[in-house]
Amino acid sequence: MHRTKVKVVEEALDANNTIATANRADFDRAGVRVVNFMSAPGAGKTSLLERVIADLDGVRAGVLEGDVQGSMDADRLAHLHVPVTQLNTDSGFGGECHLDANMVRSALPALPLAEIDLLVIENVGNLVCPAEFRVGEDARVMVCSVTEGEDKPLKYPLMFRTCELVLINKIDLLPHLDFDLDKLLYNLDAVHPDVERMLVSARTGEGIEAWREWLAHVAAPEGVHA
Amino acid sequence: MHRTKVKVVEEALDANNTIATANRADFDRAGVRVVNFMSAPGAGKTSLLERVIADLDGVRAGVLEGDVQGSMDADRLAHLHVPVTQLNTDSGFGGECHLDANMVRSALPALPLAEIDLLVIENVGNLVCPAEFRVGEDARVMVCSVTEGEDKPLKYPLMFRTCELVLINKIDLLPHLDFDLDKLLYNLDAVHPDVERMLVSARTGEGIEAWREWLAHVAAPEGVHA
Repeated sequence: MHRTKVKVVEEALDANNTIATANRADFDRAGVRVVNFMSAPGAGKTSLLERVIADLDGVRAGVLEGDVQGSMDADRLAHLHVPVTQLNTDSGFGGECHLDANMVRSALPALPLAEIDLLVIENVGNLVCPAEFRVGEDARVMVCSVTEGEDKPLKYPLMFRTCELVLINKIDLLPHLDFDLDKLLYNLDAVHPDVERMLVSARTGEGIEAWREWLAHVAAPEGVHA
Repeated sequence: MHRTKVKVVEEALDANNTIATANRADFDRAGVRVVNFMSAPGAGKTSLLERVIADLDGVRAGVLEGDVQGSMDADRLAHLHVPVTQLNTDSGFGGECHLDANMVRSALPALPLAEIDLLVIENVGNLVCPAEFRVGEDARVMVCSVTEGEDKPLKYPLMFRTCELVLINKIDLLPHLDFDLDKLLYNLDAVHPDVERMLVSARTGEGIEAWREWLAHVAAPEGVHA
């Protein structure tokens, strides 16, 4: 029985890749670069977006919010006056723990692709399955909070291995934690040697400027659009 | 295509419930009570087990460690001299984000059921799918860390709704966070009114005695075994 189950999953991943490629073609045609933004629940994805998404050096950004249910993160971003589209995964059963390419495809008609240069897809908070499903993105960014412990790259290696940037968040809490930052970086290099990483605090703003520049650069690698 | 996919998942959940019932019958026959222990990655499950698992008022406990890969948590528990069994979910594809009843069933022959009164199953760190799959447990406990934000009960309601106890961990960090504990408790009551909850810190030991007593009581509701 277990073998059968694995086979179904592998076929699902093949179908997912086909749809992800179609999404990517549509994004390319619209001139929109796409970032798949992932983390564990509560690592600070929305806070890190709030810090930068409305002020990206002339790059016009939009957000696709993936949640099991509700629109709390979309509501948090509403005051920034960037287009935010909500995508819920709870139809049908208890809720999908990740976005897949078909869910993102179902949201395409609702996305204002003609009005944006960059789409940030905030995935469901989860360190496992979101890493397994491409959705048509150009780049993957993950957030790892220092409150989660140094072992996370070793426990969830696929997530850390498949992203282009790791944001190490909540560094303002370091004085109050038994946390060995060198050990985290060592573990990170063990699963994804030399992956770009930034130490940030969405709370204090430390490191945020580098994150803002990185994100703007994804959409405008040769410089400012506006 | 989406309808087909949902149907497959529902059939998988039916099969899961059948196997969970069989697991439960085996645990009952062996006189072992079972706790399904869940949380987001890095919320502190292993630390909270380390604090209590070797000293449960005469209750003999064992641990089944669920991880995508590796045995870091099992290694952390090794010095406590309680039986620990490792179960990895990474066979076949990128890794399952949860334990299901069949995975736990596959571990049964490796579990020293005759030597324990209580089995704590530490699930994969994830707030979505672990809540959807019963594994044969008597009780569900989840850990919610105050660093994750007040909104988590509303964003992951099934997890909060299906557990018998919520451990609110890392309360030693409250003075250093912009965190409204009353708001978390309000959101918790919105999805699971009056569910038992404990404020704890695995780091300082605050609240740990109540957690220890709760866990011992699951296995020995009428008093100490030894």
